[in-house]
Amino acid sequence: MEQPVETLEGWYCLHLFWKLDWAAWKKQPRQVRQLAWHEFEKQLQIWQGNETNNHGSSYNFNVVGHKADLGMMLLREKMSDLNQVENSLLKLRLFDFMTEVNSFVSVTEVGTYGGKPHNDRGWQYVNQHLMPILPKKPYICFYPMNKARKNGANWYTLPYADRKEMMHEHGFIGRKYAGKIWQFITGAIAFDDQEWGVTLFAEDPLVFKKIVTEMRYASASAIYGDFPYFICGSYLNTAKLKDFLLI
Amino acid sequence: MEQPVETLEGWYCLHLFWKLDWAAWKKQPRQVRQLAWHEFEKQLQIWQGNETNNHGSSYNFNVVGHKADLGMMLLREKMSDLNQVENSLLKLRLFDFMTEVNSFVSVTEVGTYGGKPHNDRGWQYVNQHLMPILPKKPYICFYPMNKARKNGANWYTLPYADRKEMMHEHGFIGRKYAGKIWQFITGAIAFDDQEWGVTLFAEDPLVFKKIVTEMRYASASAIYGDFPYFICGSYLNTAKLKDFLLI
Amino acid sequence: MEQPVETLEGWYCLHLFWKLDWAAWKKQPRQVRQLAWHEFEKQLQIWQGNETNNHGSSYNFNVVGHKADLGMMLLREKMSDLNQVENSLLKLRLFDFMTEVNSFVSVTEVGTYGGKPHNDRGWQYVNQHLMPILPKKPYICFYPMNKARKNGANWYTLPYADRKEMMHEHGFIGRKYAGKIWQFITGAIAFDDQEWGVTLFAEDPLVFKKIVTEMRYASASAIYGDFPYFICGSYLNTAKLKDFLLI
Amino acid sequence: MEQPVETLEGWYCLHLFWKLDWAAWKKQPRQVRQLAWHEFEKQLQIWQGNETNNHGSSYNFNVVGHKADLGMMLLREKMSDLNQVENSLLKLRLFDFMTEVNSFVSVTEVGTYGGKPHNDRGWQYVNQHLMPILPKKPYICFYPMNKARKNGANWYTLPYADRKEMMHEHGFIGRKYAGKIWQFITGAIAFDDQEWGVTLFAEDPLVFKKIVTEMRYASASAIYGDFPYFICGSYLNTAKLKDFLLI
Amino acid sequence: MEQPVETLEGWYCLHLFWKLDWAAWKKQPRQVRQLAWHEFEKQLQIWQGNETNNHGSSYNFNVVGHKADLGMMLLREKMSDLNQVENSLLKLRLFDFMTEVNSFVSVTEVGTYGGKPHNDRGWQYVNQHLMPILPKKPYICFYPMNKARKNGANWYTLPYADRKEMMHEHGFIGRKYAGKIWQFITGAIAFDDQEWGVTLFAEDPLVFKKIVTEMRYASASAIYGDFPYFICGSYLNTAKLKDFLLI
Repeated sequence: MEQPVETLEGWYCLHLFWKLDWAAWKKQPRQVRQLAWHEFEKQLQIWQGNETNNHGSSYNFNVVGHKADLGMMLLREKMSDLNQVENSLLKLRLFDFMTEVNSFVSVTEVGTYGGKPHNDRGWQYVNQHLMPILPKKPYICFYPMNKARKNGANWYTLPYADRKEMMHEHGFIGRKYAGKIWQFITGAIAFDDQEWGVTLFAEDPLVFKKIVTEMRYASASAIYGDFPYFICGSYLNTAKLKDFLLI
Repeated sequence: MEQPVETLEGWYCLHLFWKLDWAAWKKQPRQVRQLAWHEFEKQLQIWQGNETNNHGSSYNFNVVGHKADLGMMLLREKMSDLNQVENSLLKLRLFDFMTEVNSFVSVTEVGTYGGKPHNDRGWQYVNQHLMPILPKKPYICFYPMNKARKNGANWYTLPYADRKEMMHEHGFIGRKYAGKIWQFITGAIAFDDQEWGVTLFAEDPLVFKKIVTEMRYASASAIYGDFPYFICGSYLNTAKLKDFLLI
Repeated sequence: MEQPVETLEGWYCLHLFWKLDWAAWKKQPRQVRQLAWHEFEKQLQIWQGNETNNHGSSYNFNVVGHKADLGMMLLREKMSDLNQVENSLLKLRLFDFMTEVNSFVSVTEVGTYGGKPHNDRGWQYVNQHLMPILPKKPYICFYPMNKARKNGANWYTLPYADRKEMMHEHGFIGRKYAGKIWQFITGAIAFDDQEWGVTLFAEDPLVFKKIVTEMRYASASAIYGDFPYFICGSYLNTAKLKDFLLI
Repeated sequence: MEQPVETLEGWYCLHLFWKLDWAAWKKQPRQVRQLAWHEFEKQLQIWQGNETNNHGSSYNFNVVGHKADLGMMLLREKMSDLNQVENSLLKLRLFDFMTEVNSFVSVTEVGTYGGKPHNDRGWQYVNQHLMPILPKKPYICFYPMNKARKNGANWYTLPYADRKEMMHEHGFIGRKYAGKIWQFITGAIAFDDQEWGVTLFAEDPLVFKKIVTEMRYASASAIYGDFPYFICGSYLNTAKLKDFLLI
Repeated sequence: MEQPVETLEGWYCLHLFWKLDWAAWKKQPRQVRQLAWHEFEKQLQIWQGNETNNHGSSYNFNVVGHKADLGMMLLREKMSDLNQVENSLLKLRLFDFMTEVNSFVSVTEVGTYGGKPHNDRGWQYVNQHLMPILPKKPYICFYPMNKARKNGANWYTLPYADRKEMMHEHGFIGRKYAGKIWQFITGAIAFDDQEWGVTLFAEDPLVFKKIVTEMRYASASAIYGDFPYFICGSYLNTAKLKDFLLI
């Protein structure tokens, strides 16, 4: 048995995807829709408070295409907090018109193939990935990922040193996109159907394509990466979210 | 043909997952919802009685994410008892607003690669896994599992001794988590689509990730394990369940 | 091209699985539900008459878990009879509240790897599997099956003698369960998505697990068997079916 | 790059599968149902006219099992004609109660591994498969098919001569069923998810099973054939279709 | 790690597929349907304006078969423009009767295996594929595509020169269909579940089959191409779209 990599974990993470029943929503009287919006807006203010007090973070977005209308990335200190956030949404009037169509349950994760941090600056960097305030960039890209466990290409039977080398190459590509891509890795082994979630933020969505394409030629992805789906969207701040919902 | 492992079985097990139609449920008058709750509460009391009398056990939980709202793990003496429990729920008023979205039919199982128990203490341990009172820990993790039957990685054509050795390694990892993880294996060959169900309980959900990750590097999982999905949730005792349902 | 095995066929077979819309059904006035029941009961009496006159057979069961509520295994002399039975159900009032969620179309089959019967007793045995009166045992287990056609494990390019030997081993295991398991094989090549259906009946459902597990170590299953899903349930005679439906 | 086989094409083909919402349909007043029937009957007469004038052909059938209620195989001169036929159905009152659940878009195809026709009789045979009047036999069997493109079994990297030989063997088996099976091949590369559709007609559905089973042992199917699903049904002439729909 | 190919990108692209609830739509009074049409027609005029001003392009089509009723291919300058177009449709009255059933998010792409353009004419050709006015040909064929990453057939571990050679062969076939096929490649890595989208336009849909079949024998497709689904349809200009919708 090869040596597992040690990982550091932080906040629990819920990616949550909703479809709105536009026909039913539009049929509601304007007042009802505004009331429903105000209820939801209060929730958003609570979330904002959480973020200000460093107890979590969140990012709402408008998914492109049929997979969802509204996407949320929610970070909280405990897994049961994710239950609470989800339940509090389900009980809102607005969400009578929403259906949960997808989700991903995970926890922020930093691997240690490159060693654990050995000074304050190192820990600061790590903590910004374990308890991050999500950057409110205009675009988001989310995708879950597995490492292959096939004959002839099994990540989990590779020696530690080989995995480390491939992750190094992977990290080397990533660093080329510093200042263009904000990347967060969340671990989902035992929590959801795939092993990791990758969430990228950017000013320009073309860099999502550029970085993922470049990485696809590196062994960690080319041979060992399995990427069942990708979801992209545009950031919705409160004003844009209101605009999105109120017709 | 290689020698099959002998297994010991106990209670039949039904993992049952429900989605609540929150919009329709909320539209009901408060009295109707309370009446529906009281009906269900009576059922829960009957279940509690079963558990007290050692005729079965149950654990209700709030699933994180879109896969379900309410999860149940139900243990009963006979397979037809599972039908009865399921039917009695379907006939309750509350469940007019619930949809069964997933389930897993199995029976508690203890393998004997490490030998059958040879004293009372051994049998006591085994019986606690065949007729268990499920621990009411705050978190649950459930996942079904298959052993690979591919060319080059076929669990069922391996010699008994090889399987035994891998299960020993697997058990060795498991024992490191004693006192942190409560694990129950249920066998589903001929009962459901995957071969086994694994149910873990813990105070801290992070240990789910830690144990499953560590095991993933052991051959039994790395090479032979197939894990189609994972479901996590938080324990709902009667008070929390009431709170979850009554808005 | 290797020699195909000759097969003997008898009655056409439809496994039919229904989900009941309990909420809508319960909303019907008691009289309507009773009327609907009586209509269906008449159908059941016609089926019983078919069975008595040896023109077919049927077995109704309560499926465990979310896959279905009501399962039916229906045998008839012609494939168009299966259309007729299905249509006659769809036109009943009760089935306004039922949805077909799964089915399997096949024909009873006896293979001849062990030779064709050479005396009356042999033919009697065969005929009991081609035109069987289904045993009204308390439990049923149904699963479809394919034989692998992968590189390195292709059933259809194996020499006849090799397939015969594996089927012999398979049959040897089966005979150990005589008196505990009643097994019916139905062929579905060209009729449905998998190649065969296996239906088992038993007094004790644990033997389903025992026989399928033991067979899984034999080459015919270990290397060549593909089993996409399993469905189990409890027998519903008319009285129990009435009880199941009338609340 | 190996030489592709040349193919001859004729009429465009749409296999269309519908589920009827029986509960809603039955709730309609008898007059409404009869009106809806008469509208559809007129459409059927137009189709019959098309067939008489050799501008296309059609065959309606009652699917066995849950996959569909009503199946149609429609042949027309242009692909846009298929759009028109489909739209004209969707606009009929009857089809307010029908849902399209599956379809297959293709074009009649004759391969030329055995050479192109070199006389009138040859062309006549080919044309009967490119612009066929579908035989109104009591049973139909439809299945889509792909040729494997796996490592070690890739149809598209095989030399022309090898493919020709396998298709010859395949055709040899087919000819044994002359007078029992009426077979039509339609090509779907670039039109639908699988590469070909195979439609068989017969007096006795058992021959569907016999021919597909026998072919499964020939290399073209055993090694290179992928068959995701099969659908069988019984012919519905206008009288039977009326009987099927009017309760 | 092998050298990735450099790509040029242009407009963002959304393929969007809708099913119409014909029964509900037909139930609307004629005036309501006309009003809804006029609202949509205005949107179409805005799209037309975008096209005239070279800020994007669009093509509407009637999908053959059950996969969708209405298909759209939409090109815009920014990814957030795709959100805006989609949202503006969802808010229209007509789309209360439409359901998004599929979509594909990508960006126009030109690869540079054959070198980057070195003169104006070259850049003109490239720009016609990066910012194209979609040709209003009578037929469209859309399919997403992945390059294999299997053991023994991994596109991403092939040397640049090998990939270049295969793309050259692929392009050579493509050029044979010049004047018969208008092809647009869009890249979807990081944007959607498959890596590329291919959209073909033609006067005669048979050429879709001819070109895709011929290419399937070339290594780039035969060994490395994965094509999960194909969708075909007929062009709907405003008059035909009106005709399609107004009954």
